[in-house]
Amino acid sequence: MKYEDFEEKTLSRKEIFKGKIIDVVVDDVRLPDGAIAKRELVFHPGAVAIIPITEDNRLVMVKQFRKPLEKVTLEIPAGKIDPGEQDVPIETARRELEEETGYQAQTLEPVTSMYVSPGFANELLHVFYGEKLTKVENPLPQDEDEVLELYELTLEEAKQEIKNGLICDAKTVFAVQYWELMQLKRKQEEVQR
Amino acid sequence: MKYEDFEEKTLSRKEIFKGKIIDVVVDDVRLPDGAIAKRELVFHPGAVAIIPITEDNRLVMVKQFRKPLEKVTLEIPAGKIDPGEQDVPIETARRELEEETGYQAQTLEPVTSMYVSPGFANELLHVFYGEKLTKVENPLPQDEDEVLELYELTLEEAKQEIKNGLICDAKTVFAVQYWELMQLKRKQEEVQR
Repeated sequence: MKYEDFEEKTLSRKEIFKGKIIDVVVDDVRLPDGAIAKRELVFHPGAVAIIPITEDNRLVMVKQFRKPLEKVTLEIPAGKIDPGEQDVPIETARRELEEETGYQAQTLEPVTSMYVSPGFANELLHVFYGEKLTKVENPLPQDEDEVLELYELTLEEAKQEIKNGLICDAKTVFAVQYWELMQLKRKQEEVQR
Repeated sequence: MKYEDFEEKTLSRKEIFKGKIIDVVVDDVRLPDGAIAKRELVFHPGAVAIIPITEDNRLVMVKQFRKPLEKVTLEIPAGKIDPGEQDVPIETARRELEEETGYQAQTLEPVTSMYVSPGFANELLHVFYGEKLTKVENPLPQDEDEVLELYELTLEEAKQEIKNGLICDAKTVFAVQYWELMQLKRKQEEVQR
């Protein structure tokens, strides 16, 4: 099928909320078959996440309180893209890594960019893999409204925390799986050499 | 640190929007240090996604239009949890797989449950891995307001579509990575035998 066979054309838009982080609208759309439907949409500036691996092969993570979940979680460092950073998510990644962990990564490679919940939100998450970490003497300060505690976990510890439920968000589960897959591939390459 | 050192207590809540899919509120919270902050929160009923693998080792996917992205995407089958299904996400998974693809999975195993965007939303996504697929003669009808087209991709094809950007959502990128990791682990086990 062609694009036109899928497209939902906006007939009208109702602005519901303009927040600091998200905007909410409700669209009336015309479906390809001519029928009318409503779409509840959340607009978000996008975010970055970093998979920071230390020299002794541990994943750097932050423990924090997540109000939507009413729960403390263990996650890889991440944060919203600020105005002016839209075209350079790697700069956001550098900033967030330093703010949240006090680390700089000498190597910071893009892994993937993915929409976290395409059914209702346009949030695009850019994931980076960071190696050759060094502690910064005077790091950027943490956000005022964030309380964070740092952890460095082995792969086995991280997999255990997924089972325990302390690691429970998609980007971090993805990150641990990515790390495991990469280790396995590297081992295979060594064997084949 | 203890839970109390992280917790953000709700002082007041302003209800912004009650929709068919999401509710939106803004909370005034007290941070552990006593300061006050605002939290924009989206409540969502949760969702399921299925990684359905055919007998000839292909991933079943659906092409569809995503209004928040104004874009056609290729994703694994997924859908919201309906009222009454809250405690049995595997039932939602069975329903959505049949509605969206016409397949039933003789084997349907939980992979993980993860919050897709814990910074502002409480949406919990339950992921299942489905094998031994059989076509249903008279499958459940698709949702009225959904236009879907079915695809079955090899692992290499799916990885290529991530590069092309047609696969661009977190659950599907996660699914392809999960599938690759599992295949690699199975191969290793065979070698070791």
